[in-house]
Order: sequence, then structure tokens, then C-alpha cells
Amino acid sequence: MYEGPVQDLIDEFGRLPGIGPKSAQRLVFHLLGVERVDIERFAHALLALEKVGFCTRCHNVAAGELCRICANPKRDPSAICVVEEARDVVALERTHEFNGLYHVLGGALSPLDGITPERLRVRELMERVTAVEPNGTYEVQEVILCTNPTVDGEATAAYLLRELQTLDRSDLAVSRIASGLPVGGDLEYADEVTLGRALAGRHSL
Amino acid sequence: MYEGPVQDLIDEFGRLPGIGPKSAQRLVFHLLGVERVDIERFAHALLALEKVGFCTRCHNVAAGELCRICANPKRDPSAICVVEEARDVVALERTHEFNGLYHVLGGALSPLDGITPERLRVRELMERVTAVEPNGTYEVQEVILCTNPTVDGEATAAYLLRELQTLDRSDLAVSRIASGLPVGGDLEYADEVTLGRALAGRHSL
Repeated sequence: MYEGPVQDLIDEFGRLPGIGPKSAQRLVFHLLGVERVDIERFAHALLALEKVGFCTRCHNVAAGELCRICANPKRDPSAICVVEEARDVVALERTHEFNGLYHVLGGALSPLDGITPERLRVRELMERVTAVEPNGTYEVQEVILCTNPTVDGEATAAYLLRELQTLDRSDLAVSRIASGLPVGGDLEYADEVTLGRALAGRHSL
Repeated sequence: MYEGPVQDLIDEFGRLPGIGPKSAQRLVFHLLGVERVDIERFAHALLALEKVGFCTRCHNVAAGELCRICANPKRDPSAICVVEEARDVVALERTHEFNGLYHVLGGALSPLDGITPERLRVRELMERVTAVEPNGTYEVQEVILCTNPTVDGEATAAYLLRELQTLDRSDLAVSRIASGLPVGGDLEYADEVTLGRALAGRHSL
């Protein structure tokens, strides 16, 4: 056991996911050698997390009512990319390939973990897709299902596709993000499922 | 890039040793789902680090002028265990085998990294060892060199032994912590240096 304040901070770091007692100790000893202003900036950054909530439209993290993407008038509101978590939004934004809006489900279907469609923001997605503009047309024209290519993510995408098909919106374009070999990957070391997907998803040249 | 406050906290975590951008992001997303009071307790634990300094006697971390060990009148001031870092004190305290005091060097000699004896608290150790009590006797009777059994730690122990021998204190007992097989270890998997040390350090039964 360390002196009170040292042990307190070790305990706090130790409560974070993936940080054990040894790592927590190492971090605190690092901070013991850091300038006072740096510690204060860290503490204030922590307290500033209070200001962060979730976007009322897409459920991405947001400092205000809308997230930066939903609040940006240059984004195309007719396309919605459906992702599991807010961090997936950042991953997709880094590609600079998509100029539409997002919809964060808050996870993937996982019956064993009790994650049912009611626990995800499926109803909110359906409301967005069926929202009608003042001129009588639908705002959303395209939905890209970008849940992870895992068992749960695939099941979620399949479920959402079925739900979207029941909406009586035959004009709606629904697609699924492609699976295949990662760029820079090697056929020899690819697992057979990924390789099979890459083959099935081949495109003519 | 995330919303301002989120990115700020990711940057702060990312500045810690051994925490990359992905881990920092994971930690912040964890904290986004945590109760407000828990965040505040974390921030206050960080700010409380201001109160932590170093023991004026042994240079262990201390909330006051002396660390808890030096301030404890039940500890035997005649024995000093010399360690590299404050965290080594905690490791040794967990054994409950030593009831003396400590001396934290602040590292090990490493000429390549510019860690010379002047950069460590060697002079302070010599002052403690040569300190005379009011009745004219030396307070310190035993020094146990507990630097790590690494190249740098061994060099530091050898250096300290030479320095202690120049002090004209032939009554001083100087020892080195034992190297050998870890308890629960296996001869077959021990490296040859450790095994050689364990053999050399054999004791009669």
C-alpha cells in the first residue's frame, strides 16, 4: 500500500478497463514526475466530460444537442450509415469517403448477452428512414449497414435489412459494407472465411 | 477527430506511457458511460497528487515531510535497504520480511543514459550511513543493497559497495539481496545466468 493520495489514484486507474494494478502503479509514478499544470489539464479534461452527451439525431457523442456531423449543413442527409458504436463513426470519417449522416445503434444484437432489438436504437432508425419532409418526399434515400463483419454484426445487419424491407419503402437503397482482404494483406495468411468473402465479393474489371 | 472534450481527454490519456491512441479512445469511451461522481472522484484523486512529495530522509513518496515508513517509530533505523525506485519499496514491504528503513536512489547507474552517481541519491546515502547519534555511536549498522539483478542494478550495487568501503566503517554490515530461481520456478526453464547464480548462492542444510 502506498501513501494515501498515491494509492487513491492507483485505485482510480485500476478501475479502468484493461489497466491492472501494475499498469496503474506505473501510470501514477509517471504522473508523480509530471508538471503540476499537466496534471491540472488532465483533471479538467476529465471534468469536461460532463459536457459531452449524445446527439439527439444520430446518437453519436456530441458536445451540444447535435453532433458535429449532424450539425454540418454540408453533409448529405439523404444517406445514413448505420454503425454499432460512436467510435466506428470516427473510423469511417477518417476514410473521407462518406458525406452523409450516421446512426449509432449502441451495439449489436446478441441474444446471449440480452442485447435485443429493443436495447438498440432500431426504432429511432426506422423513424429517421420514414420521416417525411414538408414537400411530402422522404429525406433518407440510402441506408448503408456498417455493423462489424462479426457474427453479432452480421446478424444485426440481417435483422435491420428485414425491418427496413417491412417499411414499404421500395425506393430505399440498402447496402452492406464490403468484406474482403484488408489492403496490404496477404492471401496466404488470410483466414478462409475472409478469403471466401473476398472471392464472393469479386468485381469485374 | 472527436468532439472537443472527448478528443481533449483522449489526448491526455494518450500522453501517458504505454497508452496509445486506440487505448486512450477505449478508456474515454468507458468513462463516457460512467457515473458523474466517479469521474469527479478520479479528477480529485489526480489533483490530490499535488500533496505528494518525497520523504526528506529516504526519498520514498510521502504525503508529508517523512514517508509512512520513516515516520513509523516501530521501524528499526539501524538497517537501510537501498532500492532503485519507490515502487521497489512497496514490493519489499509486501514481503513483511524487513523492519528497517529504506533509501530510494532514484534509478540505477547507466552511463549510456547519462545516469552517473551524481544523478542518484548516493551522497545522501553516505550521509545517512555516517550520521552519528548524540551518544557518539553510528545509527546505521546494516545496509542491504536491493537494486535490481540487472546489468545496471548490479553495477550500482558494486559501486555502492566500493563507496561504502571507503567510509572507514569496518563495523558496517553490507549485503546484497540474493539472486536465484524464483519460488515455483522450474530448473528446466530457468535461464543459465539465473541458474548459475542459484548454484553459486547455494546454502548448506
